[in-house]
Parts: sequence; structure tokens; C-alpha cells
Amino acid sequence: MNLGSSTEGKHTTFPLIDTDVHERFASIEQLLPYMKEPFRSYMSNWTGWGELKYTHPIGGSRLDALLPNGAVPGSDYDVLREQLLDRYDMKYAMLTGLFYPATMEAQFELAAALASAYNDWMIEHWLERDERFLGSIHVAPQMVETAVREIERLADHPRIVQVLLPIGTAPYGDPHYHPIFEAAERHNLVVAMHQGNSVQSPFGTPRYYIEWHIVLSQAFMSMAVNLIMNGVFDKYPRTRIAMLEGGFSWVPSLMWRMDQNYKSLRMEVPWVKRMPSDYIKTHFRFATQPIEDPSPADMLKMVELMGSDELLLFSTDYPHWDFDSPERSLPTSFPDSLKRKIFYENARDFYQLT
Amino acid sequence: MNLGSSTEGKHTTFPLIDTDVHERFASIEQLLPYMKEPFRSYMSNWTGWGELKYTHPIGGSRLDALLPNGAVPGSDYDVLREQLLDRYDMKYAMLTGLFYPATMEAQFELAAALASAYNDWMIEHWLERDERFLGSIHVAPQMVETAVREIERLADHPRIVQVLLPIGTAPYGDPHYHPIFEAAERHNLVVAMHQGNSVQSPFGTPRYYIEWHIVLSQAFMSMAVNLIMNGVFDKYPRTRIAMLEGGFSWVPSLMWRMDQNYKSLRMEVPWVKRMPSDYIKTHFRFATQPIEDPSPADMLKMVELMGSDELLLFSTDYPHWDFDSPERSLPTSFPDSLKRKIFYENARDFYQLT
Repeated sequence: MNLGSSTEGKHTTFPLIDTDVHERFASIEQLLPYMKEPFRSYMSNWTGWGELKYTHPIGGSRLDALLPNGAVPGSDYDVLREQLLDRYDMKYAMLTGLFYPATMEAQFELAAALASAYNDWMIEHWLERDERFLGSIHVAPQMVETAVREIERLADHPRIVQVLLPIGTAPYGDPHYHPIFEAAERHNLVVAMHQGNSVQSPFGTPRYYIEWHIVLSQAFMSMAVNLIMNGVFDKYPRTRIAMLEGGFSWVPSLMWRMDQNYKSLRMEVPWVKRMPSDYIKTHFRFATQPIEDPSPADMLKMVELMGSDELLLFSTDYPHWDFDSPERSLPTSFPDSLKRKIFYENARDFYQLT
Repeated sequence: MNLGSSTEGKHTTFPLIDTDVHERFASIEQLLPYMKEPFRSYMSNWTGWGELKYTHPIGGSRLDALLPNGAVPGSDYDVLREQLLDRYDMKYAMLTGLFYPATMEAQFELAAALASAYNDWMIEHWLERDERFLGSIHVAPQMVETAVREIERLADHPRIVQVLLPIGTAPYGDPHYHPIFEAAERHNLVVAMHQGNSVQSPFGTPRYYIEWHIVLSQAFMSMAVNLIMNGVFDKYPRTRIAMLEGGFSWVPSLMWRMDQNYKSLRMEVPWVKRMPSDYIKTHFRFATQPIEDPSPADMLKMVELMGSDELLLFSTDYPHWDFDSPERSLPTSFPDSLKRKIFYENARDFYQLT
């Protein structure tokens, strides 16, 4: 919500885990050394992977993350370390990239080659550079079997903790995508879902960025319903879903609505064995950024309505314009035990970190 | 949520307004006398207007509303009067039909002719039969100017209180549709929005009815955002929107998210002059059915988080399977003053009834 100013001190005495940090390449050419032919040649005429449809009204990144050399914010390890890792004394920062081959609408083999190259680049240039980084496997879910092979290839890396699926127009709960969850479960990886550029409203493409940026949380709601009602958690009971940058204050309402419908209509989905809210509480976690700012008392009420203090994971979304500083993200009036869980313990437990 | 059993007594001592009652025709042939050529001839080969894509797992209507003659539930005035109007001593029941020319994807002139015929049939067979009925003007918003003419034609009827727009795939906030809001405002009519058959998730058509029935509330959220960010309430400041059968427990979360985004990004939509939550509280009301059933204390907390006790309107959705009985809809532990507002006063004030 707000940037911390540089004159502020350390946020709290709690350790921190940041579950959404966007490391970037300065240029896609940095991936070329990790690509084989024929895909490397494709890149001489690279046209992008479905860019965001909007010009950002106020710029997409923190102004202080713009680099002196004009490079992309988030692309310089030293700056990121200074602005994020050291400044807040972070125990772990989960690298989620900003990378959308998963939403390419054509040339899926190229998408898979890009994902693979990115993963190798990320491991070499980020993950192996700082022990505080934890990594995500990017895949091209357009080709499920290829995505599974990419998961197999990298799952054993000791600091790879999750598979990242951007939320776009693909309903990942549908059986077509199930092998990805099977592979993630088998390798004890979380499946992280982060907004992608191609999110739509039920009416298609909103006219304005502000409208799009508001309604994209509804794609997260639809995804949660889609995963639960298509039986992902019954089929793969150790599946863990981290929802990143989709908000969380909608969770109580959605749990109520799902439970109410399940009570009446469960005969249609007999493979769904438990109350939908049980799946939410067991299998889902929600990153806090961009945290909303009602009164602290109202926000605390909403967290209480979630029925568990274990569902929220702290995130900053560094280096983006709506970065949530650890110093200002959670209301100071939240109980210390809750802050400790959100800033650290919930992520530690969900990701099984030590 | 639950049907009242016939052994129960009267619900409360409060008067009632039911804001969502589905009067139906027993057969679409009942509209023929109200149609002119060439459209009347089209109906000899009527193929429907985009039916619901799902077989209803447990049947779409209350079992006790099935008529002995096999006719469509909601199609018999005497049964409706007995099961709803007299049983609960209703002061008003708002007729919303179950009628989807608004979502026809072709032959829009036929859609408009059907809407017009329906309106005439509804006025003659329902509205003029019982003083407790209040009526909705159905239109075909596919042709905005024609829709405006239909509003003009019927707006002066003393018991017509609103224009009904089904929520489907059309973003009614977009400027293309603004003349409808202009006409409604000029005639001091509410614009009611009710779910339509064609609601989609951000991923298209959900595989199951239960999934669809859960996610359709997200189309209401998207519509609220679409109306506000496209400046409908700044352009037509007396516009009033009644959202029917879309739920309400999502309203606090959406208000927070809209306000947060507005604080950062309002420069993109300079015609939006006030905080989005102000528009919600001033211009929107939400019908209660299908009310969810968390603990009464949790539901009361959520209503408090709406920041106003004037936003909810009672509705039953008669004669559908998920009918909310006035006897069981609101938690009995709700304060009497709140129950009185929801059951009666809020609708009376919003619809300017006496």
C-alpha cells in the first residue's frame, strides 16, 4: 500500500518471509544462452508473450527501484538486496519472476523453451547467489506433459519450493491440467498462482487499468472454486496452493457461498468429499499484498472471519508500484501473535522451511 | 436457504417487501397475442433465447411450487398468492420474471418484440391483478435506442418500479449502454440487475452447475466495478441499482479493494469523483437471497463491515429451489431494527414506496 521511507527503522522484531518478489531479466536476451535451436533462432524476431493490455497510469514500478542505468526494476541483485533483503532482514524471499510464457496463445514449444531457459537463468543468477532466495519453476501449462517434465527436471534443487502457474484464462482445476498437480505433489512442491496479464472479467477485457486491477481478484476466486469443485484436492490430497497478489478479504464470503452451494448441490460433484471451506483452510494460503486499508478494526474482523490465523502469508510484490512495506502493511494494532504468523510462521509451515 | 414448512406460523410482526419474485408464463405461446408481425410468425419455430447450459442437479424449483397440471412453477397467480403473498402477509412483491431476450445473441429485433410482449402480458396478467405486485420493464439492451423506447412506453405505469437488466456478458457500465440509465433516471426508475443464464467465469463456461452457481456472484462484483469506473453515477447521479440474487457478503471486500485502487489510480478515471465505496452505499442495494449460513454472529459482523444497515433488501427468489423463507432467512439473533430495515424499510425507501 505505501512505500516505507528510508528514514524509518526496522519494521518489527519478527523475522520475515516475503512470498512474492519479482526478480527480472534486464532484457530477454539474457535467456538466449540457455536456449537451444531452433528456439534460440525464433528469438531474433521476438514479439512478446501477450503483454498487459494497459498503459500503466502511474508507472508499474517503485520509482526508487528504477535503476540508474535505465535497466528494468528488479533486474539488479545488488539493488534488490539493499532495498529488500538487507533492509528488512529477511529470512527468505520467494522469487516469482514476471514471466508469461504460460499465457502465450501460440507456439507452445517456444513457450516451454522460454520457461526452461528462464528457470536455468534464474537458478544461476539469483537462486545460487543468495541463500535467502527460494525459487519457482516456470512452466508452459499449454502442454501439460512438457510442463511435467520441466517440473521433474528441477524439483530436486534444494531451494526450489514451488511451481508457478499464472492466472489467465485457463481453468487449472479441469482434469486436463491434473498431471501438473500430481507432479507437484509427488515432489512436495507448492503450486503458486499469481495474476497473469491475460486475466479477464466475466465481460471480457475491462476498458481501464483500474477496472482490470480491481476485478483480477475475481479470477482468483473463480480459480479456487474451479480447483475445489474439480476434485484436485481429493485426487492429490497433499496439494498446496499459494495465491499471490489476488487479495484475501474475499475469502470469508467465498467460503460461505461455496459451503452453502455444496450443502444443496454436492450430488453433482460426488468426488468432492469435504466442505469447500475445509479445502480452503487446509490447502490454500493467500499472500497479503496488495493489502487493503479499511480501519484496522475492520481488517481484523475480516481476518477473524477467515476462521483461521494460518491462511495469510506476507508479501511485498517488490519492486512494483503497489509494494507493501513490512513497516506499513499490517495494521500495528494486530496482535503480535497474528503478525508473527503472517510475517513468518505461516509461510515457514506451509512451505515446510526450517 | 431453506423452505419454511407449512406448520410454521407467521415469520415476524414486520411488514415485508420481497424484491425478487419470479412470475412466469406457462408457455411462451401466452405472449403471442401481444406480438405483431413479422415477429409473431417467427415464434412458430421458437428455439429459445440461450438456455442455461446445465441440467439442474436437484431441479430448479421448489417441489411444492410444481403445479398439479404440470405447468411451470410461478405461472399460477392463485398458487403464488397462497404460497407467498398471503402466507407471509407481504406488502409488496417485485416481479422480476424469468426472461432472457436480453441475452439473445442474434435476432435482436425479435428480442425487443419479445420483451415488449412480455411486459404487456405481465401488466395484464399479474400487475393489474393484485395491488401488492410491483413490476419490471424487460428490455433488449442489445439495441439501446429500442430499449429506451420501451422504457418510455411503460415508465408511467403507476406500479412499474424498475428496468430489469440480466447480468450476462454485456458490461452495462460501458458508454454504449448509458442511454438506458439516462432513461431510467429521467423516469425515476430503479435499474435491477439479476443473474442471467449466460454468466461466465473469467475462464469461460464452468464444467458444473455448482461451480457456475458459485461464481456467478463474481459477475455482480465485476458489474459494480464496471458501472462505477465508467462513471454511470457521475453522469446520472440519481441512478439506483438493485442487485438481485448475486449475494452481498462480498460487498465489504470489494469496497475496500475499489477504494484502495481509486486512491492510487484515480487519475485514469477523472470522471469518477467520489470514493467507490460512496457510490456503493448511495446507489446500490443488494437482495439477500441466497443468503449464506455462517454463524449468525459472523453474518452480523459481515453486515456491520458493509458500513451501512441500509444496503440489504429482503428477497425470496420464489419459486426457485433455493427459496429463502422469511421465517428462516435472517438469523433470529439479528437486532430487530436491522431485521425491520432488511425486510421492509430499505426497499420502501430505495424504491420510494408509500
